Amino acid sequence: NPNRQVLELLLTQNAARRLEAAVSDAGIAYDTVLPKALDRRLGADTVHQGAVAVCRATATVDLADLIEAACGSSHPVIVLDQVTDPHNVGAVLRSAAVFGAAGLVMTRRHSPPLAGTLAKSASGALELLPIALVQNLAKALADIAAGGLHIVGLDGAGDTFLEDAIADRPTAIVLGAEGKGLRQSTLEACHSVCRIATDGPITSLNVSNAGAIALYSCALSRRRTT
Amino acid sequence: NPNRQVLELLLTQNAARRLEAAVSDAGIAYDTVLPKALDRRLGADTVHQGAVAVCRATATVDLADLIEAACGSSHPVIVLDQVTDPHNVGAVLRSAAVFGAAGLVMTRRHSPPLAGTLAKSASGALELLPIALVQNLAKALADIAAGGLHIVGLDGAGDTFLEDAIADRPTAIVLGAEGKGLRQSTLEACHSVCRIATDGPITSLNVSNAGAIALYSCALSRRRTT
Repeated sequence: NPNRQVLELLLTQNAARRLEAAVSDAGIAYDTVLPKALDRRLGADTVHQGAVAVCRATATVDLADLIEAACGSSHPVIVLDQVTDPHNVGAVLRSAAVFGAAGLVMTRRHSPPLAGTLAKSASGALELLPIALVQNLAKALADIAAGGLHIVGLDGAGDTFLEDAIADRPTAIVLGAEGKGLRQSTLEACHSVCRIATDGPITSLNVSNAGAIALYSCALSRRRTT
Repeated sequence: NPNRQVLELLLTQNAARRLEAAVSDAGIAYDTVLPKALDRRLGADTVHQGAVAVCRATATVDLADLIEAACGSSHPVIVLDQVTDPHNVGAVLRSAAVFGAAGLVMTRRHSPPLAGTLAKSASGALELLPIALVQNLAKALADIAAGGLHIVGLDGAGDTFLEDAIADRPTAIVLGAEGKGLRQSTLEACHSVCRIATDGPITSLNVSNAGAIALYSCALSRRRTT
């Protein structure tokens, strides 16, 4: 991502040999360090390839801009209601990028930082997907509705099936944290609340899997229309 | 799972207070330990609730029995072709249990152990889903085909769309490892190889998300038929 500003770059000798050309093309200075210095910095369990870049935080977008872009798109916006696990949020970001989602909205608080574990689980999606951080989700959903998007909440207690709630129109899909689900104020802000039909012995899908299914459902609806 | 044989049970004082009735009902002896003894045993990063049970390995089923059960079922069998990441395999197990899959087949080698990280990601599915471990996947797929199941491989290079390949008949869905995809011998054993239609800037879905979408697609097909 050429828009990412690198503040500090640490490379092991092996990584420096491998990346020298790219790093010098980009005009980025680096320090050579011992592998164990990286391990100390990242924690011994972190799998890395001998390179650490300290960057400015990912630039986020304004909610109003994200809504405007989504209104002209047949791809949905994903909204997260206090999903706190960085693996899960990263995995949702990745699926959203795979299915070309118009963007992602989450609260500034009760969301993991846009870095580290989340960035790794997102496999590059953090650089590609427009993300808006908001103070108050109910207010953001009111803005999204006023902007013309149809808001579909996903909740085990929903009264319709996902596939019946999704149509080929500008849509925002709201996902909640596992266990807790959607908060009351979030449920009230949705135009419809739907569930994924399941019939197995475990009832609750992982949030990133639920998100992938919702994104796929939107892709199916686009395909039916074209 | 009453069929699980507990070999050793370690509880912190808090956990012992909480679980005493259940443990005594089940007639299981336990040792009380300090929280840091559990941390030492599980690794400091492992989130636990003060209880560790050492159990006999999960009982697996014979492939022939799994095929016979699947032939009479409208729910698919999931087959994993050398998916090595225990988080991913656990997440696939969980989705498979959510959608009531008939079972899971994976190779004895090049698969993670049915314990630890996998069991935790599976959120209880390890106790609920019939699992067959096989020596040779190509041979297992030949047995599955001979048993009457339609075998659908999921691969980015597939020539049809998932939703066109899935019909309401006994089905096995084959998933490969991220990056590597399905091996040549696996591809050749599939009746059809299909892909999930995506149009975003990242091309490869996480394997557990791909699996959840395939399971959802089968559920949609069941719903259309009934």
